[in-house]
Amino acid sequence: MHSTPQDLLDAVARSESGLKSDSFERLVVGRGSADSTAVHRALSLDALVLSLDSGRLIRSVADEATVSIASRSESYTLSIPARGQARLVANSTLGLFRGLATFEQLWYTLDGDKYLLNAPIEIADEPAFPYRSFSLDTARNFYPVDDILRTLDAMSWVKMSVLYWHVADSQSFPLEVPGFPELAAKGAYSKEEMYSVNDVELIIQYANTRGIDVVMELDTPGHTTAVGFAHPEHVACAGKSPWAKYANEPPAGQLRIASNATVEFVKRVFQSVLTMMTSTMMSTGGDEVNLPCWEEDEETIDVLNKRNIAIGEALNEFVVAIQGVLKANKITPFIKGDMILTHNVPVTNDTVAVVWQSSADAAGIAERGLRFIHQPSNYFYLDCGAGDWVGNNILGNSWCDPFKTWQRAYSFDPYANLTEAQFPLVLGGQMPLWSEQSSSENLDSIVWPRLAVAAEVFWTGGTLPDGTSRLANNVTGGRAAFSRLNELRYRLVDRGVKAIALQPKWCVLRPGECDVDA
Amino acid sequence: MHSTPQDLLDAVARSESGLKSDSFERLVVGRGSADSTAVHRALSLDALVLSLDSGRLIRSVADEATVSIASRSESYTLSIPARGQARLVANSTLGLFRGLATFEQLWYTLDGDKYLLNAPIEIADEPAFPYRSFSLDTARNFYPVDDILRTLDAMSWVKMSVLYWHVADSQSFPLEVPGFPELAAKGAYSKEEMYSVNDVELIIQYANTRGIDVVMELDTPGHTTAVGFAHPEHVACAGKSPWAKYANEPPAGQLRIASNATVEFVKRVFQSVLTMMTSTMMSTGGDEVNLPCWEEDEETIDVLNKRNIAIGEALNEFVVAIQGVLKANKITPFIKGDMILTHNVPVTNDTVAVVWQSSADAAGIAERGLRFIHQPSNYFYLDCGAGDWVGNNILGNSWCDPFKTWQRAYSFDPYANLTEAQFPLVLGGQMPLWSEQSSSENLDSIVWPRLAVAAEVFWTGGTLPDGTSRLANNVTGGRAAFSRLNELRYRLVDRGVKAIALQPKWCVLRPGECDVDA
Repeated sequence: MHSTPQDLLDAVARSESGLKSDSFERLVVGRGSADSTAVHRALSLDALVLSLDSGRLIRSVADEATVSIASRSESYTLSIPARGQARLVANSTLGLFRGLATFEQLWYTLDGDKYLLNAPIEIADEPAFPYRSFSLDTARNFYPVDDILRTLDAMSWVKMSVLYWHVADSQSFPLEVPGFPELAAKGAYSKEEMYSVNDVELIIQYANTRGIDVVMELDTPGHTTAVGFAHPEHVACAGKSPWAKYANEPPAGQLRIASNATVEFVKRVFQSVLTMMTSTMMSTGGDEVNLPCWEEDEETIDVLNKRNIAIGEALNEFVVAIQGVLKANKITPFIKGDMILTHNVPVTNDTVAVVWQSSADAAGIAERGLRFIHQPSNYFYLDCGAGDWVGNNILGNSWCDPFKTWQRAYSFDPYANLTEAQFPLVLGGQMPLWSEQSSSENLDSIVWPRLAVAAEVFWTGGTLPDGTSRLANNVTGGRAAFSRLNELRYRLVDRGVKAIALQPKWCVLRPGECDVDA
Repeated sequence: MHSTPQDLLDAVARSESGLKSDSFERLVVGRGSADSTAVHRALSLDALVLSLDSGRLIRSVADEATVSIASRSESYTLSIPARGQARLVANSTLGLFRGLATFEQLWYTLDGDKYLLNAPIEIADEPAFPYRSFSLDTARNFYPVDDILRTLDAMSWVKMSVLYWHVADSQSFPLEVPGFPELAAKGAYSKEEMYSVNDVELIIQYANTRGIDVVMELDTPGHTTAVGFAHPEHVACAGKSPWAKYANEPPAGQLRIASNATVEFVKRVFQSVLTMMTSTMMSTGGDEVNLPCWEEDEETIDVLNKRNIAIGEALNEFVVAIQGVLKANKITPFIKGDMILTHNVPVTNDTVAVVWQSSADAAGIAERGLRFIHQPSNYFYLDCGAGDWVGNNILGNSWCDPFKTWQRAYSFDPYANLTEAQFPLVLGGQMPLWSEQSSSENLDSIVWPRLAVAAEVFWTGGTLPDGTSRLANNVTGGRAAFSRLNELRYRLVDRGVKAIALQPKWCVLRPGECDVDA
C-alpha cells in the first residue's frame, strides 16, 4: 500500500470546496428552474471514489506533471451512476487530477441544490496531445504573482499541461537568477516588479500540483537588451537608433554571440536558471535576430575578423553552446522556428521547435523530422488587433492584425499540411500573450475564455471526436462549441476569473438562436 | 452670504483624500528619484482657496451640472504659486469642481511626499464643447451599479459632462419604470440584473454631484424586442426568423408604431421615465429601423390599410408623438441621425441629432440646421474589432471593424466638413460602449484610457491650443498626447480603475523613444 500523495488530497479538497461554493446555473432560459421538480425527485450520489488501476508507481500530481512529455499519463475514466458511488479511475495521479476537473464542472446549482444532467454518465477520456500550453510574456509589462496563480488555477480547470514562461525580454528582466542578482536588480522595472527565487518556486510548485509543467524561456540571442542594463559588455547595439533598423521592437540590443565571454556568461545564466526548474524542458528562444545589429558592432566585427568566420557561424556556435548546457542537464531544448527555417542553425533531433510566425511553417519543421509545438501568430496570438503601440505610427495596425477570435483559433487543424507519418512530431500547441498592450489590469479579459479553445483543440485533436470539422455548423459542431465556451466563460466568472462575454446573454441562453441564419 | 453647497464640500473632501492616498510616481526613468533633492528643498503650499467670482446664484454642483447644456459654466482659473496659497476661481461651483479635478492630478508622490512641477503655475481653462460623454449599453449585457459609479468617478477626473445611458434594447429591459414594473420584471435578464428606481436615483445623484448629467436613451421604435417580453401586443415581428431579415441583431422586434394603443403606451412609459431624471435632455433613439418587420406584420398592415397611409407616415407620427412628450416637459429631445438622414422624419429645431453611422453624416445634419453630437462609429466606438458574435459567422469581423485605437479617436476633428457658420451646431460628442461582447468583467479595460481621448478632444476643440493638429509628431503633438494618456492610465490604475497598458513600461518611461523613427 502506498499513501495518497498530499497534492492529490489537496486537489480533492479543492474540488469539494469548489463544488460547494460554485453558484453556476444552467445557461438556459429560466436558468434551470424547469429542472426543479426533477431535481427534487432525483436520486443522489454518495461519493466519488478515486482509484489507480495500473502497476505504475504512485507519485504525486506534481511529479507526474513534470515527467518527460512523452511519458505522461493523463487518461481517466469517470462513471457516474444515477445513485450510489461515482468512480474515477486512472493510471496515474495526474489522470485522476484531470478526471476531477471534469467531474467538478458537470454540476449546476439550483436554489442551493447541486445537480447534473443525464446520469448515468460514462466518460473515457484522454488527450490527443500532451503539450497544451499558455505562454505568458512577463517582460513588456509585469504581472504580479497572484495573477499567475489565478491563471494557473483556470488553466487546470481546462486541463492545460504547460505554462511557457517568456520571463524576460529587451524591455525588462524581472527574473532573479541565483548568482546573478544584478540581472533583475538592474533589469526589472522596479523592486516590486520582479520574481524572486521564492516567487518562482511558489509559481512552479503551484503549477505542478495543478498538473501544469512550467517551461521557462530565456529568449536568446535577440530580445535581450535588458541583460545589458546590468551587463552592457554582453549586448551589441544596445539602445541604438533608429531602433527599427536593429530590432523588431524598441529598445535595440542583442547578445554578443561572437564573444567568448558572452557565451560563457549566458551558459552560466542558463545553468543557474535550470536549478530553479522542475521541468525537463526549457526554451532558448531565438526569434527575430537582427543581422545589422551585429554587423555594425565593432566588438563583434573584431572577433569575426580575427577568427575569419561569418556571423552565421557565430550564431551556430552560440546555439550549440547554449543548447549544450540544457542537454548536459538532460533538458529537452526548445527553439523558435525561425532559427531553423531562416537561419538554419544546427539542432539535434531531440530539439523541439516553436512554430510561431505562421501555421504554414509547421510543414518545413516537420520535413526536418523535428518535434514541434504550434503557436501560429495567424491563429493563436491573444494580443493582436489593438493597433500599433509605437509612439507615432498613429493609425497603424498591430503586426499580427486582426484580433484572433475564438472561432479563428477553434478552426485550427494541428495536422494541416502534414503527412500521417509526421503526425507524431506534433507535441501540441500554445496560445501566447505578448504584453506590449497588456498587463495585470486586462490579463483575464484578454486571455479568457479564448485560451480554453487551445485547451480543447489540443485535448481533442484534429477534428471533433466523431471525425467532423470543429466548425461544422450543426448541433455537434460550432454551435455546441459556442455553448461549451459560453458555459466555461460563466463558470470562470463564477470562480472569480474575469473572462469576457462572447455574446449578449440573450444569445447565451438560447444556443443557435443568434446564428446569422436562425 | 450663501452657504457652500454640500456636494462641493464633499468634492473638496474627496480631492483631499485622493491627494493623500494617490501613490502615483512620475513616469520617468527612476520614477522621480532624481527630484529628491529639489523636493526636499522645495517651498510648500499652505492651502487651496476656492472662490466664486460672479454674481451667479450659488447652486450645487449637481444643479449646475444639469442646467440646460447651453448655459453651463465650467471655466476656471487656477493659480499655484511656489509657496503660500493656491487659488481656484470660477463662475460656478461646476467650474470649481472642474478646477479641483485639474489640481488633484498635478501631483506626484516620492517617498511619501507629494510635489508638483514648475510652480508657479497659472491655468485658465474652459471647454470647447459642453457635451463630453460616455454612452453605456446596459442591455446586451448587464453592469452592476458599482461598475457605473466607478466609471462616473473616472469620468469626472477627465471632466466629462454627460453619461448617455442606453439602458434597454431588444435583448433585455433592465430598467424599473414607475407604473410599469412588468417591463423589467419580464424584460431583465434576472431580478439581480435590473436597475431599481432607487438604483437610478443613486446613479443620477452620484453623477450629478460629480459634474455629470445623465441623459437617458429609450431607443424607439427599433431595438425594442424586450418590451414585448411583458407586452407582446406592442411589438411587431417579435422573435421572427430569420432575424437578419427583420433586425440588425437578434432577436427581431419593433414597436407597432401604427397602433394607437402602442403609441399611447410608449408615451406613458416616456412620461414615467421623465420623473426619474434630473436632466433637461433625453433620447428617443431611432437607429436601425427595419421596414420588412412592419411590412409583414398583420396588425400593422391592417392599420395602414384602414387609414390609407404608408409606414413612413406612421413613423413620422410616432416620432412626433414621442418627442411631444419630451417637449411638453421642456426636455430637449435627442434622436439618432439615421431617423433624419434616411427616414426624413420631421423634427423641430430644438432636436439634437446623434451622428453615429459615420463621421461623414455630420455635414448632412448641419445642413438641416440641427444641433448634434458626434458619436461616429468610424472613430469612437469602443467595442469594435473583436470579431462577429453571431453563432456561425465564424470568421467574420465586427461590423465596425477594426478596433478604434486611441490615436484614431484622437485624430477626430469635430469641425471637419462643416462651415464656420455651422460650428455652433456641434454640442460635443461621445464614445459609446455597445455591450454584445462586453460586461462587468472587461468594462474598465475596454473603456479606459481610450475614453479620456474623447474627453480631451471635446474639451480642447478642433486642434491643440496652439492651433496645430493633435497628431503632429512633435513634442507638443502626438508625443505629448501619448505621455499625457500614459500618465492618466497609470493614475487610473493607482485609483483602482483597471485601464489597459498602451505600451511596454519601458516606452512609457521614455516618451518618444518608442516612436518608429526614434
